Amino acid sequence: MRHISVQTQTRAQNGKSKVIFSGIQPTGVPHLGNYLGALRQWVKLQDEALSDDTLLFSIVDLHAITIKQDPRDLARSRREMLASLLAVGLDPKRCIIFTQSSVKQHAELMWILSCGASMGYLGRMTQWKSKLSLPANASPLEPANNKDALKLGLFSYPVLQAADILLYNTTHVPVGEDQAQHLEFSRELATGFNHLYSSDSEKPLLTVPQTMLSPAKRVMSLTDPTKKMSKSDPKPRSRILITDSREEIHSKLKTALTDSIEGVSYAPEDRPGVSNLIDLMYHFDESAGVTPQEVAADLRNISMRSLKEKVADTIDTGIKEIRGRYEELIGGDEQKLIDHAGDGARRAENIAENTMNNVRQAMGMRW
Amino acid sequence: MRHISVQTQTRAQNGKSKVIFSGIQPTGVPHLGNYLGALRQWVKLQDEALSDDTLLFSIVDLHAITIKQDPRDLARSRREMLASLLAVGLDPKRCIIFTQSSVKQHAELMWILSCGASMGYLGRMTQWKSKLSLPANASPLEPANNKDALKLGLFSYPVLQAADILLYNTTHVPVGEDQAQHLEFSRELATGFNHLYSSDSEKPLLTVPQTMLSPAKRVMSLTDPTKKMSKSDPKPRSRILITDSREEIHSKLKTALTDSIEGVSYAPEDRPGVSNLIDLMYHFDESAGVTPQEVAADLRNISMRSLKEKVADTIDTGIKEIRGRYEELIGGDEQKLIDHAGDGARRAENIAENTMNNVRQAMGMRW
Repeated sequence: MRHISVQTQTRAQNGKSKVIFSGIQPTGVPHLGNYLGALRQWVKLQDEALSDDTLLFSIVDLHAITIKQDPRDLARSRREMLASLLAVGLDPKRCIIFTQSSVKQHAELMWILSCGASMGYLGRMTQWKSKLSLPANASPLEPANNKDALKLGLFSYPVLQAADILLYNTTHVPVGEDQAQHLEFSRELATGFNHLYSSDSEKPLLTVPQTMLSPAKRVMSLTDPTKKMSKSDPKPRSRILITDSREEIHSKLKTALTDSIEGVSYAPEDRPGVSNLIDLMYHFDESAGVTPQEVAADLRNISMRSLKEKVADTIDTGIKEIRGRYEELIGGDEQKLIDHAGDGARRAENIAENTMNNVRQAMGMRW
Repeated sequence: MRHISVQTQTRAQNGKSKVIFSGIQPTGVPHLGNYLGALRQWVKLQDEALSDDTLLFSIVDLHAITIKQDPRDLARSRREMLASLLAVGLDPKRCIIFTQSSVKQHAELMWILSCGASMGYLGRMTQWKSKLSLPANASPLEPANNKDALKLGLFSYPVLQAADILLYNTTHVPVGEDQAQHLEFSRELATGFNHLYSSDSEKPLLTVPQTMLSPAKRVMSLTDPTKKMSKSDPKPRSRILITDSREEIHSKLKTALTDSIEGVSYAPEDRPGVSNLIDLMYHFDESAGVTPQEVAADLRNISMRSLKEKVADTIDTGIKEIRGRYEELIGGDEQKLIDHAGDGARRAENIAENTMNNVRQAMGMRW
C-alpha cells in the first residue's frame, strides 16, 4: 500500500520521525464512506507508526463554520465525531485527537500566512465555487446573482487548511485526490514563508509537507449508486452510519437500488448498484487478498436478496465492535469525552505554541 | 470637546461603564502628527476616565505585517512605540497597553467574523486600494498589472480591525474620519453576529461600538506643507519626532518650507507652510483658549525667522518631558519594558478570553 512505501522512503531519506496530520469536519456520526475512505486509513497509520512519530487528527470545526451552522447541531456533531474517532480505534495514547477551535494558534498562523497569500491564486481555486454550487468561472466578488453570497471565510478556507498542517511541522498529509490542489497551496505558502523568514535554510521554520495519496475508496449512495455516499443526502437510507444496528443495516440494504439483471457481476459502469455492494464486501475483507472481481465471481449465482443479506452481514460484522465502543462512549459519563477533548487540545497546543514562538520570533513579533 | 459630550450622553443613556479601544501601528517613535492627532487624545481620555471605565491601547503589529516588514525593524519599532506610549503619559495602572500579536484571540475572532463578512463588501472598501496606490475601481483579483500583488491579509484588514474592537466589548472607538468606513463595517459585523447567535437581544454577545470622532488635527509636513506629516516621507526633516532634541527641533524648523510674503497670517489655503507653524503653536497651547487666527494676529509683525524660533521653543517645551521619559525608558533596563508588555497582554487576554468563551459557547464550539 502506498502509505507504507512513503514511510519507508522518508526514513531512508532523512532519518527523521514523521508527523502526520489530517482533519475531518464535525458532521456527526461518520458513514461508511468516511470510515472506509479516511478513518480506517488513520487507524492503520496509527498501528504502523513508530514510537517517535506524531499523529494528529483534528475535528475541524473552524472549517465547518464557513458554511452556516446551527450551534446546537454543531455542538452535538463535534461530540459525536469525537466519540466516533475513539470508537473506530484511534487511541489517545498513540495519537493526538482534538477540535481545531480549541487551539487558537490555527487562526493565528492563518492570519500570518494570509499576509503572504495571493488573492488572485485563491480566486482561481475551486472549492468555494463547488461549495456554493457555482460554475468554474464564477467571480468571488459577484458570484452568481447574489453578489454578497460569498463570505471571506469560505474564500480563505485553503489558507486555514495550510495553517492546520504547517502548525505541527507536518511531514505527511493523507489526502484524497480532491484535496491535492490545497496541499500544493500549503506547500507554496510554507516555501514562501521560509524564503522570507528562515535565517537557516538547513532548518526551515515551517516544514514543507508531502502528500500521502491513498487509493481512492469511493463508497456510493445506496439509493443512487451513481453518487457518493454523503451526509448531505436528504435520504437517511442512502447511507449506513458506523453506529447503525444490525436491523438498520439489513433494512437499508434491503431497499438499496440495484438492477434486474440476473446474477451477480462486478461492472461499476453498467451495474453501479450491485458493484457498490461488491465493493463494500471487498473493503471489509481486504485482508483476504481477493479483488472485487473475484468476490463477484464467487457470488455469481446467488440472488440479489441473498447478496444483500451477505453484504449486510459483512458490514454488521465489520462495524460491530465500533458500534459497541461508540455506544459506551456516547452513553457513558460525558465528562470522560470532555477530558479526552481537553487532553488532546493541550497536547496539540504545546506543539503549535512551539511553532508559533519560532514564527513570532522570526517575524520580529516576540518580546 | 466632542468626546466629553459622548461620554456624558452614554452614562445618561444606559449607566454602563465605557470601554475605549484604539490601535496604533508599530512605526517606531511617533511624530507630531501621531502625537497631536491620536496619542495626546488618548492621554486625555485616560485622564477623564472614571474608575470603572476600561481603556485599551494596542500596538497593532498584526496589521503592520499586511505590508512586508523587516523583522528587525518591526521588533525595534514595537519597542519604540511601547516606550513612546508610556512616555506620552499613558499609565499602565489606568489603561491596558499591549501588542496585538500577544493576544491570539484577535486572530481567532477575526476568523469567526470572516465567516460572516461579505467578499463583495470588502472588495468595495478603499483601504487596500490606497495602500497599494491603486485607483478606486481596481479589482482585488487582478489589481493593476501584477495580478498577484494583493495579498489576502491586506484585503481582510477591516475584519481584523473589527475583531480588535469587538473582542473587548468596546463601547467607544476614537477614530479619525478616514476610519469611519471601517468602524461602520465593525458595527455591521457585530450586529450580524448578534442576530445569528445572541439568544437574548437585551444582552447581545458583541457590543456594537460607537465612534468618537475627534476634531481633525492635521499636522503637515515641514518640507511640503500640502502633505500630511508622515513616517513614510523619505525626508527625515519633514517631520519632528516626539523624542527630537531641542537642537533637532530648531534645525528642522529653520529649514521648514514657508513663503516670502511679509508678516505672519493664518491662511491654510494660501500660506500652508506658515499656517502649519501657527497650527503647531495653537495645538501645543490649546488650553489658552485662543484660535489659530488669534495666535497669528498676535505674531503678525514678527519675522519668519522669529516665528520659527518661537514655534521651535513651543514644541520643545511641549515635548520636553515626553523626551525625558522616553530616554529613561528606552535607555534603561529592557526587562522593564518587556514586563510592561507582558502585563498589558495578560490583562487584555483576560477580557478577550471571556468574550471568546461566550462566542464559542454561543456557536456550539465549547466543550
